Amino acid sequence: MSVTAAKGFTAAGIAAGIKENGNPDLALVVNTGPRRAAAGVFTSNRVKAAPVQWSEQVMKSGQVSAVVLNSGGANACTGPKGFQDAHATAEKVAEVLGRGAIEVAVCSTGLIGLLLPMDKLLPGIETAAGSLSEHGGEKAAIAIKTTDTVHKTSVVTKDGWTVGGMAKGAGMLAPGLATMLVVLTTDADLENDVLDKALRAATRTTFDRVDSDGCMSTNDTVLLLASGSAEVTPEYEEFAEAVRQVCDDLGQQLIRDAEGASKDIKVEVINAATEDDAVEVGRSIARNNLLKCAIHGEDPNWGRVLSAIGTTSAAFEPDRLNVAINGVWVCKNGGVGEDRDKVDMRYREVHIVADLAAGSETATIWTNDLTADYVHENSAYSS
Amino acid sequence: MSVTAAKGFTAAGIAAGIKENGNPDLALVVNTGPRRAAAGVFTSNRVKAAPVQWSEQVMKSGQVSAVVLNSGGANACTGPKGFQDAHATAEKVAEVLGRGAIEVAVCSTGLIGLLLPMDKLLPGIETAAGSLSEHGGEKAAIAIKTTDTVHKTSVVTKDGWTVGGMAKGAGMLAPGLATMLVVLTTDADLENDVLDKALRAATRTTFDRVDSDGCMSTNDTVLLLASGSAEVTPEYEEFAEAVRQVCDDLGQQLIRDAEGASKDIKVEVINAATEDDAVEVGRSIARNNLLKCAIHGEDPNWGRVLSAIGTTSAAFEPDRLNVAINGVWVCKNGGVGEDRDKVDMRYREVHIVADLAAGSETATIWTNDLTADYVHENSAYSS
Repeated sequence: MSVTAAKGFTAAGIAAGIKENGNPDLALVVNTGPRRAAAGVFTSNRVKAAPVQWSEQVMKSGQVSAVVLNSGGANACTGPKGFQDAHATAEKVAEVLGRGAIEVAVCSTGLIGLLLPMDKLLPGIETAAGSLSEHGGEKAAIAIKTTDTVHKTSVVTKDGWTVGGMAKGAGMLAPGLATMLVVLTTDADLENDVLDKALRAATRTTFDRVDSDGCMSTNDTVLLLASGSAEVTPEYEEFAEAVRQVCDDLGQQLIRDAEGASKDIKVEVINAATEDDAVEVGRSIARNNLLKCAIHGEDPNWGRVLSAIGTTSAAFEPDRLNVAINGVWVCKNGGVGEDRDKVDMRYREVHIVADLAAGSETATIWTNDLTADYVHENSAYSS
Repeated sequence: MSVTAAKGFTAAGIAAGIKENGNPDLALVVNTGPRRAAAGVFTSNRVKAAPVQWSEQVMKSGQVSAVVLNSGGANACTGPKGFQDAHATAEKVAEVLGRGAIEVAVCSTGLIGLLLPMDKLLPGIETAAGSLSEHGGEKAAIAIKTTDTVHKTSVVTKDGWTVGGMAKGAGMLAPGLATMLVVLTTDADLENDVLDKALRAATRTTFDRVDSDGCMSTNDTVLLLASGSAEVTPEYEEFAEAVRQVCDDLGQQLIRDAEGASKDIKVEVINAATEDDAVEVGRSIARNNLLKCAIHGEDPNWGRVLSAIGTTSAAFEPDRLNVAINGVWVCKNGGVGEDRDKVDMRYREVHIVADLAAGSETATIWTNDLTADYVHENSAYSS
């Protein structure tokens, strides 16, 4: 059901010819109201793609009528012409919908450094507008895929209101050209500031902790639109939890579809002095290429976990560190613990627990193993 | 000639049986000179192996008579017993040489989390001491290899004095278990403080800027010993430059032998506001898995360079960035530059220049491509 699970939204997904292989590559999501509230979170990469620069301006306008998304080209590092193209894309959507361009967010994903084929994209917008439907959510989710093997959608329905959404890619810190684009919709009747608070709270502990390969995209965008169609204003906590659940579910789907991965690795840091310490240690472990190779080889190499922890500034004493892999405490007090042969690594999910013995805070980072397939996909992509 | 190129040093390398395959695994370097001055630089990983903890104490004693090095086991994350073993190793060397244990530095490399086979190591020290020779430098260099395919030595001879050395591994930020161990010797007559200053200056711009896979070892050690045998005290600048040359040469050898690599990548950051900015940007580029995969695929993917620059806090404006790959300015002013098809990627060395257009400082970081062979070597190693 994707972005059209919530009332007050239509969507479409079509093949505009941006991708040379003829696959769907253009999606449109329209808020049919009565409210056009929205919030957005964008990549923290300082090299921002043109559509991100445009959409950041749109967010400042206070309302969002529509989102247009294309795969087949990131429109990043494309200079003033790239920004003109993002603007022209929004203008075209505004024209066919009879809205203002400054209410149209634009998202793009694909190769960096290439201009979009506007001669295909602009007519495609007319086609997409002609096929907008209250059942178009799946098609929209399909049209934003790049190296994704499956499309990703999620829905949470509560008492009279719904949060739904679609995603593509594999993490805020994206592998390949697999920029993460997410559009969430709700028919709850909420103001921008509530949406913003709930979205930031949700992304902080979900998408921001999905770290497939440590690389940050120029195009990452997460949008939350509210139509007010349900004529219900939920309590903040309940709404925020629903948004968090949808983000968490979509984040898990991104990890499971990460390029070339054979293992999904849950890095749980416990007993940290602060949450920031827990996140720093979790990321350091999740980004350690040697460990990611070891996990690929089903080798419970806890020495590489300790080595990764040792590069952080978190509070800990080396001789008090404990590490469990799939439930076996292979490292105790900084040294050899239980027999590593007890660790069963046959399954796709691997669970690493790093106990800093320095406090009571915790954080979980999800990542993948490093595989020859990952190298292949990312060495061959643009050639 | 290695560590015995300089007068006043003997060395040996033997097979003590620490490695199960019977390869050489124990090296001894002894300072026979009138002076026993020394300086050391150690890993900044907070999880330090027992031999690092021991050798840091040795450095505080003010003089170093000998260095004992073993491959076949890192003696890291081995708790109090590991430290006792490092101490016992130094005691044994002291006993056979008639020196004090606190003058004996210890270096280990190999798997983390395993105790050393002291029943083989201690008798091995007697054997090594029996074969000490003024021509033993090559054998010592061979005995410290782990996954190294070649042993690494370098010598610079000046007017009446020499700096020589040996190295194993592939970077201060080491791939595999390829901890970097380096022992440098000189027959120049110099005090500890001069050695320390020269060694820190040299490692800062050489070994510290060799970043094969971003992973930092628990065991990295670089030692510089001075025998005074040449009875010459060179000018500081001349001596420091000789040390830098030997470190630079050994660093290049480490990169060329990095595990599984098919490309050596020189990342040169120019026109940075500060040297720190240049180093931060260089490291971010050098550690970007997506770019390392692209280089492996001979794909001059400058978008991934810009994306990596964008994650740093360095001073720059995105629309003023320029990137050259092998001499072709494929990115100009943050957008498309010269035709990327002009870039010749056939050779092993790849030269990336990132122009921040923000000042006049520069730094060069060396790294390698990311390959399926790297994944294989590091997923299969300890299994």
